[in-house]
Amino acid sequence: MGVGLMGGSIALAALRIGYRVSLYDSLASGELSGPKFRGASIAANLAELVSNSRLIILATPIDAVKEVGSLLSSLVSSSHVVSDVASAKRPVAAVLADLLRDHCDYVPAHPMAGSEKSGAQAAREDLFVGAVTLICPELARDAASVRLVSEFWQNLGTRIVSIGIPEHDTMVALISHLPHLLAALLVKQVADTDRSAFELCGSGFRDATRIASASPRLWKDILLSNSDAVGHQIRLFKRTLEEAEKVLADKDAKNLQALLDEAKENRDRLSA
Amino acid sequence: MGVGLMGGSIALAALRIGYRVSLYDSLASGELSGPKFRGASIAANLAELVSNSRLIILATPIDAVKEVGSLLSSLVSSSHVVSDVASAKRPVAAVLADLLRDHCDYVPAHPMAGSEKSGAQAAREDLFVGAVTLICPELARDAASVRLVSEFWQNLGTRIVSIGIPEHDTMVALISHLPHLLAALLVKQVADTDRSAFELCGSGFRDATRIASASPRLWKDILLSNSDAVGHQIRLFKRTLEEAEKVLADKDAKNLQALLDEAKENRDRLSA
Repeated sequence: MGVGLMGGSIALAALRIGYRVSLYDSLASGELSGPKFRGASIAANLAELVSNSRLIILATPIDAVKEVGSLLSSLVSSSHVVSDVASAKRPVAAVLADLLRDHCDYVPAHPMAGSEKSGAQAAREDLFVGAVTLICPELARDAASVRLVSEFWQNLGTRIVSIGIPEHDTMVALISHLPHLLAALLVKQVADTDRSAFELCGSGFRDATRIASASPRLWKDILLSNSDAVGHQIRLFKRTLEEAEKVLADKDAKNLQALLDEAKENRDRLSA
Repeated sequence: MGVGLMGGSIALAALRIGYRVSLYDSLASGELSGPKFRGASIAANLAELVSNSRLIILATPIDAVKEVGSLLSSLVSSSHVVSDVASAKRPVAAVLADLLRDHCDYVPAHPMAGSEKSGAQAAREDLFVGAVTLICPELARDAASVRLVSEFWQNLGTRIVSIGIPEHDTMVALISHLPHLLAALLVKQVADTDRSAFELCGSGFRDATRIASASPRLWKDILLSNSDAVGHQIRLFKRTLEEAEKVLADKDAKNLQALLDEAKENRDRLSA
């Protein structure tokens, strides 16, 4: 349900390994009938999607979750499992758990993969290969529901890490939401200081700011849904910046070298 | 002179288009005689390099510039042009202009291209293709010297932008040195907060922090050589962060959307 970059990539990856896939998107139904999603059945409405499915994955924007969850609650039964792929879990899970509690199990999931591109046409069957999927098992009553979602994401080539919902939001504020905001603010600083500088940028700047091209509508909702944790990370980063400012002002070569050495060591390990 | 990532890539790119290339590196002479640099003559010492060359490009670490410049000053004549590729120009140019003034023309240049890898073995003949080279003509007495350096970098596939030395350092503090520091500090924040988070990072974090893997020794010198301008950019960025912090704390969807929209628009134009 919801076939943009994420929903479309899930569909393509699942089709490739032989899952039966049914798609529904209230906005993009025209795009879905093209050759890109050949092999998937296109549901005419949510009721048809539900009747076709055992596992229902919501990949809508965050601000559509309440309406979709409400519609779903009247359609699902205990044979269904609902999951989602939202990048911030606390508010999304609260809404969906509330709406679905009496009807079926709900297992939040978050594949840590994305792209600066958006929309169904940007979907790729290999988007998730090698990524981690964070799964929050705490709301499910039946362990089989958690297994169903975990095995699905394992089959799509991701490594499963189980995590609590609050811990998820704290974690992604650090490794996803703060980096996203920094990239956008770095572009803003160049635009505000000297727009002609954009024409001189090398690959370092391009890499560092690539994610600033991702969907603003999507990211506005993500950042607002996790604003407390992101705010905390911003305050930590300001303090980190102040330390760096002092190291530079003091021309403190030893501590600057140590900072850069440690960053390289940690970043190199990430590539390995 | 100085055959690491930058010097080696200059050599490979120049060899490919038919320049006669002579290499000298006091530390890496063993590496230079391998197949990678086939076609270049390997000078036994700086005097031999100078006698082989019309244009002498220094691609040493910044902290070696003084010693090399001093040696050069006793070897060059008015038929030579010296250039460099340092990422911060003010202190480097002051030293070299002083040492070379009575001997030959000096034209600082800075190709806006690099890599998170370092060393001669990471050199690539296509490193500069499509990049901008900033050239500072103000110290040269003969316009032909500026033309020689400009044509060289044009022939290597870069677009030439002429800029004053102080303006160069202000510009690169914004589009290169600040982004580099932010990447290193982002890695530091994850390391300081929760090292296990590194195992969950997606491609967004990887892109945003790739440059943190570049040579710490090199970047320590770059940041220290341009510490005033980088310090100014850090202070601006702290203010930008504070605005974002307020937008999030106020749940100000309209201004957050505007910030992300504008960042995407500017970043998309960069890719085009």
